[in-house]
Amino acid sequence: MSKILLIGASGTIGQAVQANLGARHDVITVGRNSGTHRADLSQPASLAALFAAVGRVDAIVNTAGNLHFGPLTEMTAEQFNLGLQDKLLGQVQLALLGHKYLNDGGSITLISGVLSIEPIRNGANATAVNAAIEGFVAAAAIELPRGLRINAVSPTILTESVGVYGPFFPGFESVPAERAARAYQRSVEGGQTGQVYRVNA
Amino acid sequence: MSKILLIGASGTIGQAVQANLGARHDVITVGRNSGTHRADLSQPASLAALFAAVGRVDAIVNTAGNLHFGPLTEMTAEQFNLGLQDKLLGQVQLALLGHKYLNDGGSITLISGVLSIEPIRNGANATAVNAAIEGFVAAAAIELPRGLRINAVSPTILTESVGVYGPFFPGFESVPAERAARAYQRSVEGGQTGQVYRVNA
Repeated sequence: MSKILLIGASGTIGQAVQANLGARHDVITVGRNSGTHRADLSQPASLAALFAAVGRVDAIVNTAGNLHFGPLTEMTAEQFNLGLQDKLLGQVQLALLGHKYLNDGGSITLISGVLSIEPIRNGANATAVNAAIEGFVAAAAIELPRGLRINAVSPTILTESVGVYGPFFPGFESVPAERAARAYQRSVEGGQTGQVYRVNA
Repeated sequence: MSKILLIGASGTIGQAVQANLGARHDVITVGRNSGTHRADLSQPASLAALFAAVGRVDAIVNTAGNLHFGPLTEMTAEQFNLGLQDKLLGQVQLALLGHKYLNDGGSITLISGVLSIEPIRNGANATAVNAAIEGFVAAAAIELPRGLRINAVSPTILTESVGVYGPFFPGFESVPAERAARAYQRSVEGGQTGQVYRVNA
Protein backbone atom coordinates (compact mmCIF):
# COMPACT_ATOMS: atom_id res chain seq x y z
CA MET A 1 0.00 0.00 0.00
CA SER A 2 1.40 3.33 -1.14
CA LYS A 3 0.72 6.78 0.26
CA ILE A 4 -0.72 8.91 -2.54
CA LEU A 5 -1.41 12.65 -2.52
CA LEU A 6 -4.41 13.35 -4.78
CA ILE A 7 -4.95 16.99 -5.74
CA GLY A 8 -8.33 17.75 -7.30
CA ALA A 9 -10.01 14.87 -5.49
CA SER A 10 -13.52 16.29 -5.71
CA GLY A 11 -13.55 16.72 -9.51
CA THR A 12 -14.97 14.29 -12.04
CA ILE A 13 -11.61 12.69 -12.76
CA GLY A 14 -10.50 13.09 -9.15
CA GLN A 15 -13.39 11.00 -7.89
CA ALA A 16 -12.68 8.30 -10.46
CA VAL A 17 -8.99 8.27 -9.51
CA GLN A 18 -9.92 8.05 -5.84
CA ALA A 19 -12.18 5.07 -6.60
CA ASN A 20 -9.44 3.33 -8.59
CA LEU A 21 -6.34 4.04 -6.48
CA GLY A 22 -8.21 4.13 -3.16
CA ALA A 23 -8.98 0.43 -3.53
CA ARG A 24 -5.30 -0.44 -3.08
CA HIS A 25 -3.58 2.62 -1.59
CA ASP A 26 -3.78 5.21 1.14
CA VAL A 27 -5.08 8.27 -0.76
CA ILE A 28 -4.81 11.69 0.86
CA THR A 29 -7.33 14.06 -0.73
CA VAL A 30 -6.61 17.71 -1.52
CA GLY A 31 -8.89 20.33 -3.01
CA ARG A 32 -9.42 24.07 -3.31
CA ASN A 33 -12.55 23.90 -1.16
CA SER A 34 -12.75 20.30 0.04
CA GLY A 35 -10.62 17.29 0.95
CA THR A 36 -8.42 16.41 3.92
CA HIS A 37 -6.07 19.24 2.93
CA ARG A 38 -6.73 22.50 1.08
CA ALA A 39 -4.49 23.89 -1.63
CA ASP A 40 -4.82 26.02 -4.76
CA LEU A 41 -2.61 25.38 -7.80
CA SER A 42 -2.46 29.09 -8.54
CA GLN A 43 -1.07 29.85 -5.07
CA PRO A 44 2.52 28.55 -4.74
CA ALA A 45 2.48 29.23 -1.00
CA SER A 46 -0.49 26.90 -0.55
CA LEU A 47 1.43 24.09 -2.25
CA ALA A 48 4.45 24.63 -0.01
CA ALA A 49 2.16 24.51 3.02
CA LEU A 50 0.53 21.34 1.68
CA PHE A 51 3.79 19.42 1.38
CA ALA A 52 5.01 20.70 4.74
CA ALA A 53 1.82 19.36 6.32
CA VAL A 54 1.69 16.00 4.54
CA GLY A 55 5.36 15.07 4.51
CA ARG A 56 6.74 12.19 2.45
CA VAL A 57 4.53 10.30 0.01
CA ASP A 58 4.97 7.68 -2.70
CA ALA A 59 2.99 9.43 -5.40
CA ILE A 60 1.69 12.88 -6.26
CA VAL A 61 -1.35 12.80 -8.50
CA ASN A 62 -3.06 15.88 -9.89
CA THR A 63 -6.38 16.05 -11.74
CA ALA A 64 -7.01 19.81 -11.38
CA GLY A 65 -6.13 22.96 -13.28
CA ASN A 66 -7.94 26.04 -14.63
CA LEU A 67 -7.61 27.41 -18.15
CA HIS A 68 -9.01 30.34 -20.07
CA PHE A 69 -11.51 29.54 -22.81
CA GLY A 70 -12.65 32.22 -25.24
CA PRO A 71 -12.31 33.58 -28.78
CA LEU A 72 -8.73 34.24 -29.85
CA THR A 73 -9.61 37.60 -31.36
CA GLU A 74 -10.90 38.89 -28.01
CA MET A 75 -8.32 37.20 -25.77
CA THR A 76 -6.00 39.34 -23.65
CA ALA A 77 -2.56 38.49 -22.35
CA GLU A 78 -3.99 38.72 -18.82
CA GLN A 79 -6.58 36.05 -19.62
CA PHE A 80 -3.97 33.85 -21.30
CA ASN A 81 -1.77 34.19 -18.24
CA LEU A 82 -4.52 32.74 -16.01
CA GLY A 83 -3.97 29.33 -17.55
CA LEU A 84 -0.20 29.75 -17.40
CA GLN A 85 -0.30 30.55 -13.69
CA ASP A 86 -2.86 27.89 -12.74
CA LYS A 87 -2.87 24.65 -14.75
CA LEU A 88 0.68 25.10 -16.06
CA LEU A 89 2.82 26.76 -13.39
CA GLY A 90 0.72 25.21 -10.60
CA GLN A 91 1.49 21.71 -11.87
CA VAL A 92 5.13 22.59 -12.54
CA GLN A 93 5.37 23.78 -8.96
CA LEU A 94 3.83 20.48 -7.79
CA ALA A 95 6.77 18.76 -9.49
CA LEU A 96 9.53 21.24 -8.59
CA LEU A 97 8.56 21.23 -4.93
CA GLY A 98 6.90 17.84 -4.66
CA HIS A 99 9.74 15.64 -5.87
CA LYS A 100 11.65 16.50 -2.70
CA TYR A 101 8.84 14.90 -0.67
CA LEU A 102 8.70 11.71 -2.73
CA ASN A 103 10.13 8.44 -1.48
CA ASP A 104 12.70 6.82 -3.80
CA GLY A 105 11.03 5.47 -6.94
CA GLY A 106 7.95 7.62 -6.36
CA SER A 107 5.94 9.25 -9.11
CA ILE A 108 4.29 12.47 -10.17
CA THR A 109 1.28 12.35 -12.48
CA LEU A 110 0.03 15.57 -14.05
CA ILE A 111 -2.94 16.26 -16.31
CA SER A 112 -2.89 17.75 -19.79
CA GLY A 113 -5.74 17.09 -22.23
CA VAL A 114 -6.64 16.23 -25.82
CA LEU A 115 -6.46 19.87 -26.91
CA SER A 116 -2.66 19.67 -26.72
CA ILE A 117 -2.72 18.07 -30.16
CA GLU A 118 -6.32 18.65 -31.33
CA PRO A 119 -7.13 22.37 -31.22
CA ILE A 120 -10.71 23.63 -31.01
CA ARG A 121 -12.12 27.14 -31.35
CA ASN A 122 -11.80 29.14 -28.13
CA GLY A 123 -9.06 26.76 -27.02
CA ALA A 124 -5.76 28.52 -27.79
CA ASN A 125 -4.88 28.83 -24.11
CA ALA A 126 -5.78 25.20 -23.44
CA THR A 127 -3.74 23.91 -26.37
CA ALA A 128 -0.68 25.93 -25.36
CA VAL A 129 -0.90 24.99 -21.68
CA ASN A 130 -1.57 21.30 -22.31
CA ALA A 131 1.28 21.10 -24.84
CA ALA A 132 3.57 22.77 -22.32
CA ILE A 133 2.65 20.25 -19.64
CA GLU A 134 3.38 17.36 -21.97
CA GLY A 135 6.71 18.94 -22.86
CA PHE A 136 7.51 19.53 -19.21
CA VAL A 137 7.03 15.90 -18.18
CA ALA A 138 9.20 14.70 -21.07
CA ALA A 139 11.97 17.08 -20.03
CA ALA A 140 11.62 16.67 -16.26
CA ALA A 141 11.77 12.87 -16.58
CA ILE A 142 15.41 12.95 -17.70
CA GLU A 143 16.49 14.99 -14.68
CA LEU A 144 14.56 13.54 -11.74
CA PRO A 145 16.88 11.77 -9.26
CA ARG A 146 16.40 8.62 -7.11
CA GLY A 147 14.33 6.70 -9.66
CA LEU A 148 11.55 9.27 -9.44
CA ARG A 149 9.13 9.26 -12.35
CA ILE A 150 6.82 11.82 -13.95
CA ASN A 151 4.04 11.32 -16.51
CA ALA A 152 0.97 13.12 -17.81
CA VAL A 153 -2.54 11.87 -18.47
CA SER A 154 -4.19 13.46 -21.50
CA PRO A 155 -7.90 12.65 -21.63
CA THR A 156 -10.33 13.67 -24.35
CA ILE A 157 -13.69 15.13 -23.32
CA LEU A 158 -15.29 13.10 -20.52
CA THR A 159 -18.64 11.44 -21.00
CA GLU A 160 -19.68 13.00 -17.70
CA SER A 161 -18.92 16.49 -19.12
CA VAL A 162 -20.58 16.23 -22.53
CA GLY A 163 -23.70 18.01 -21.29
CA VAL A 164 -21.69 21.10 -20.41
CA TYR A 165 -18.68 21.09 -22.77
CA GLY A 166 -19.95 18.95 -25.67
CA PRO A 167 -20.75 21.90 -27.99
CA PHE A 168 -17.10 23.01 -27.85
CA PHE A 169 -15.92 19.55 -29.01
CA PRO A 170 -17.87 18.89 -32.22
CA GLY A 171 -17.64 15.25 -33.24
CA PHE A 172 -15.25 14.27 -30.46
CA GLU A 173 -16.04 10.90 -28.92
CA SER A 174 -16.06 11.03 -25.14
CA VAL A 175 -14.56 8.65 -22.58
CA PRO A 176 -15.85 7.93 -19.09
CA ALA A 177 -13.73 9.32 -16.24
CA GLU A 178 -13.13 5.75 -15.14
CA ARG A 179 -10.95 5.25 -18.22
CA ALA A 180 -8.90 8.34 -17.40
CA ALA A 181 -8.43 6.89 -13.92
CA ARG A 182 -6.89 3.76 -15.44
CA ALA A 183 -4.27 5.96 -17.11
CA TYR A 184 -3.42 7.39 -13.68
CA GLN A 185 -3.15 3.82 -12.41
CA ARG A 186 -0.70 3.02 -15.22
CA SER A 187 1.39 6.03 -14.27
CA VAL A 188 1.39 5.35 -10.51
CA GLU A 189 1.71 1.57 -10.50
CA GLY A 190 3.65 1.14 -13.76
CA GLY A 191 7.33 1.74 -14.36
CA GLN A 192 7.41 4.28 -17.19
CA THR A 193 8.51 7.90 -17.00
CA GLY A 194 8.28 10.89 -19.34
CA GLN A 195 5.12 9.45 -20.90
CA VAL A 196 1.86 11.05 -22.00
CA TYR A 197 -1.00 8.60 -21.55
CA ARG A 198 -3.60 9.66 -24.11
CA VAL A 199 -7.12 8.55 -23.22
CA ASN A 200 -9.29 8.64 -26.33
CA ALA A 201 -12.39 6.80 -27.48
CA MET B 1 7.26 44.59 -51.39
CA SER B 2 5.68 43.90 -48.02
CA LYS B 3 6.06 45.83 -44.79
CA ILE B 4 7.52 43.49 -42.17
CA LEU B 5 7.96 44.10 -38.46
CA LEU B 6 11.03 42.18 -37.24
CA ILE B 7 11.38 41.81 -33.48
CA GLY B 8 14.79 40.60 -32.31
CA ALA B 9 16.53 42.08 -35.31
CA SER B 10 19.96 42.31 -33.67
CA GLY B 11 20.18 38.63 -32.68
CA THR B 12 21.91 35.87 -34.61
CA ILE B 13 18.71 34.69 -36.27
CA GLY B 14 17.34 38.22 -36.51
CA GLN B 15 20.31 39.38 -38.57
CA ALA B 16 19.93 36.39 -40.89
CA VAL B 17 16.21 37.08 -41.28
CA GLN B 18 16.95 40.73 -41.99
CA ALA B 19 19.42 39.69 -44.68
CA ASN B 20 16.93 37.29 -46.26
CA LEU B 21 13.67 39.26 -46.06
CA GLY B 22 15.33 42.66 -46.37
CA ALA B 23 16.36 41.82 -49.92
CA ARG B 24 12.73 41.87 -51.06
CA HIS B 25 10.74 43.68 -48.37
CA ASP B 26 10.60 46.77 -46.20
CA VAL B 27 11.80 45.44 -42.83
CA ILE B 28 11.22 47.53 -39.70
CA THR B 29 13.65 46.48 -36.98
CA VAL B 30 12.74 46.18 -33.30
CA GLY B 31 14.91 45.24 -30.35
CA ARG B 32 15.20 45.53 -26.60
CA ASN B 33 18.20 47.84 -26.92
CA SER B 34 18.57 48.52 -30.63
CA GLY B 35 16.59 48.83 -33.85
CA THR B 36 14.31 51.48 -35.30
CA HIS B 37 11.83 50.77 -32.49
CA ARG B 38 12.37 49.48 -28.95
CA ALA B 39 10.21 46.83 -27.31
CA ASP B 40 10.58 44.09 -24.71
CA LEU B 41 8.61 40.85 -25.01
CA SER B 42 8.25 40.64 -21.25
CA GLN B 43 6.60 44.08 -21.10
CA PRO B 44 3.12 43.96 -22.66
CA ALA B 45 2.86 47.75 -22.55
CA SER B 46 5.95 48.08 -24.73
CA LEU B 47 4.35 45.84 -27.37
CA ALA B 48 1.17 47.92 -27.34
CA ALA B 49 3.25 51.06 -27.79
CA LEU B 50 5.19 49.39 -30.62
CA PHE B 51 2.09 48.58 -32.66
CA ALA B 52 0.58 52.00 -31.98
CA ALA B 53 3.77 53.60 -33.34
CA VAL B 54 4.23 51.34 -36.38
CA GLY B 55 0.62 50.92 -37.50
CA ARG B 56 -0.43 48.38 -40.13
CA VAL B 57 2.04 45.84 -41.50
CA ASP B 58 1.95 42.75 -43.69
CA ALA B 59 3.96 40.48 -41.46
CA ILE B 60 5.08 40.23 -37.84
CA VAL B 61 8.24 38.21 -37.41
CA ASN B 62 9.82 37.41 -34.06
CA THR B 63 13.21 35.84 -33.42
CA ALA B 64 13.57 36.79 -29.73
CA GLY B 65 12.62 35.33 -26.36
CA ASN B 66 14.26 34.56 -23.04
CA LEU B 67 14.07 31.29 -21.16
CA HIS B 68 15.37 29.92 -17.88
CA PHE B 69 18.06 27.26 -18.11
CA GLY B 70 19.14 25.34 -15.02
CA PRO B 71 18.94 22.02 -13.18
CA LEU B 72 15.39 20.82 -12.57
CA THR B 73 16.11 19.88 -8.99
CA GLU B 74 17.12 23.45 -8.14
CA MET B 75 14.55 25.25 -10.29
CA THR B 76 11.97 27.49 -8.63
CA ALA B 77 8.51 28.41 -9.88
CA GLU B 78 9.71 32.02 -10.11
CA GLN B 79 12.53 31.01 -12.45
CA PHE B 80 10.19 28.86 -14.53
CA ASN B 81 7.78 31.78 -14.78
CA LEU B 82 10.48 33.95 -16.40
CA GLY B 83 10.26 31.88 -19.57
CA LEU B 84 6.48 31.86 -19.39
CA GLN B 85 6.29 35.64 -19.17
CA ASP B 86 8.98 36.35 -21.78
CA LYS B 87 9.33 33.90 -24.68
CA LEU B 88 5.83 32.42 -24.25
CA LEU B 89 3.43 35.16 -23.14
CA GLY B 90 5.45 37.83 -24.96
CA GLN B 91 5.02 36.01 -28.26
CA VAL B 92 1.38 35.22 -27.51
CA GLN B 93 0.85 38.92 -26.89
CA LEU B 94 2.53 39.69 -30.22
CA ALA B 95 -0.18 37.56 -31.84
CA LEU B 96 -3.15 38.64 -29.70
CA LEU B 97 -2.39 42.30 -30.21
CA GLY B 98 -0.55 42.20 -33.49
CA HIS B 99 -3.16 40.47 -35.64
CA LYS B 100 -5.30 43.60 -35.38
CA TYR B 101 -2.51 45.55 -37.11
CA LEU B 102 -2.04 43.06 -39.95
CA ASN B 103 -3.33 43.72 -43.43
CA ASP B 104 -5.64 41.01 -44.82
CA GLY B 105 -3.71 37.83 -45.57
CA GLY B 106 -0.82 38.93 -43.38
CA SER B 107 1.25 36.59 -41.25
CA ILE B 108 2.74 36.14 -37.80
CA THR B 109 5.89 34.04 -37.40
CA LEU B 110 7.01 33.05 -33.91
CA ILE B 111 10.05 31.14 -32.71
CA SER B 112 10.11 27.91 -30.71
CA GLY B 113 13.14 25.59 -30.84
CA VAL B 114 14.29 22.00 -31.09
CA LEU B 115 13.93 21.45 -27.34
CA SER B 116 10.15 21.34 -27.78
CA ILE B 117 10.52 17.72 -28.82
CA GLU B 118 14.13 16.90 -27.88
CA PRO B 119 14.68 17.59 -24.16
CA ILE B 120 18.14 18.24 -22.76
CA ARG B 121 19.34 18.51 -19.15
CA ASN B 122 18.68 21.97 -17.68
CA GLY B 123 16.06 22.55 -20.36
CA ALA B 124 12.70 21.80 -18.71
CA ASN B 125 11.59 25.42 -19.01
CA ALA B 126 12.69 25.61 -22.64
CA THR B 127 10.91 22.39 -23.59
CA ALA B 128 7.68 23.47 -21.92
CA VAL B 129 7.74 26.98 -23.40
CA ASN B 130 8.70 25.86 -26.91
CA ALA B 131 6.02 23.14 -26.88
CA ALA B 132 3.47 25.73 -25.74
CA ILE B 133 4.41 28.06 -28.60
CA GLU B 134 4.02 25.27 -31.13
CA GLY B 135 0.64 24.41 -29.64
CA PHE B 136 -0.40 28.03 -29.66
CA VAL B 137 0.26 28.55 -33.38
CA ALA B 138 -1.65 25.38 -34.25
CA ALA B 139 -4.64 26.57 -32.22
CA ALA B 140 -4.49 30.25 -33.16
CA ALA B 141 -4.34 29.35 -36.86
CA ILE B 142 -7.91 28.01 -36.83
CA GLU B 143 -9.31 31.22 -35.35
CA LEU B 144 -7.47 34.03 -37.11
CA PRO B 145 -9.80 36.07 -39.37
CA ARG B 146 -9.24 37.75 -42.77
CA GLY B 147 -6.90 35.09 -44.14
CA LEU B 148 -4.31 35.89 -41.49
CA ARG B 149 -1.74 33.18 -40.93
CA ILE B 150 0.50 32.12 -38.02
CA ASN B 151 3.45 29.71 -37.96
CA ALA B 152 6.45 28.91 -35.82
CA VAL B 153 10.08 28.33 -36.75
CA SER B 154 11.79 25.68 -34.62
CA PRO B 155 15.55 25.68 -35.19
CA THR B 156 18.04 23.32 -33.63
CA ILE B 157 21.25 24.78 -32.14
CA LEU B 158 22.81 27.35 -34.47
CA THR B 159 26.29 26.86 -35.86
CA GLU B 160 27.01 30.42 -34.74
CA SER B 161 26.10 29.48 -31.14
CA VAL B 162 27.97 26.18 -30.78
CA GLY B 163 30.86 27.89 -29.02
CA VAL B 164 28.62 29.08 -26.21
CA TYR B 165 25.77 26.54 -26.04
CA GLY B 166 27.33 23.45 -27.65
CA PRO B 167 28.08 21.66 -24.36
CA PHE B 168 24.38 21.70 -23.47
CA PHE B 169 23.50 19.97 -26.77
CA PRO B 170 25.67 16.83 -26.83
CA GLY B 171 25.73 15.25 -30.28
CA PHE B 172 23.27 17.71 -31.81
CA GLU B 173 24.20 18.77 -35.34
CA SER B 174 23.99 22.52 -35.79
CA VAL B 175 22.50 24.59 -38.60
CA PRO B 176 23.65 28.05 -39.77
CA ALA B 177 21.25 30.90 -38.96
CA GLU B 178 20.84 31.44 -42.68
CA ARG B 179 18.88 28.16 -42.83
CA ALA B 180 16.57 29.29 -40.03
CA ALA B 181 16.00 32.49 -42.01
CA ARG B 182 14.78 30.42 -44.95
CA ALA B 183 12.11 28.92 -42.68
CA TYR B 184 10.98 32.46 -41.85
CA GLN B 185 10.86 33.15 -45.57
CA ARG B 186 8.64 30.09 -46.06
CA SER B 187 6.29 31.33 -43.37
CA VAL B 188 6.13 34.94 -44.62
CA GLU B 189 6.07 34.37 -48.35
CA GLY B 190 4.36 30.96 -48.42
CA GLY B 191 0.68 30.22 -47.92
CA GLN B 192 0.60 27.78 -45.00
CA THR B 193 -0.76 28.42 -41.52
CA GLY B 194 -0.59 26.56 -38.21
CA GLN B 195 2.74 25.05 -39.20
CA VAL B 196 5.94 24.41 -37.28
CA TYR B 197 8.94 24.70 -39.59
CA ARG B 198 11.62 22.51 -38.01
CA VAL B 199 15.14 23.46 -39.03
CA ASN B 200 17.47 20.56 -38.35
CA ALA B 201 20.75 19.38 -39.79
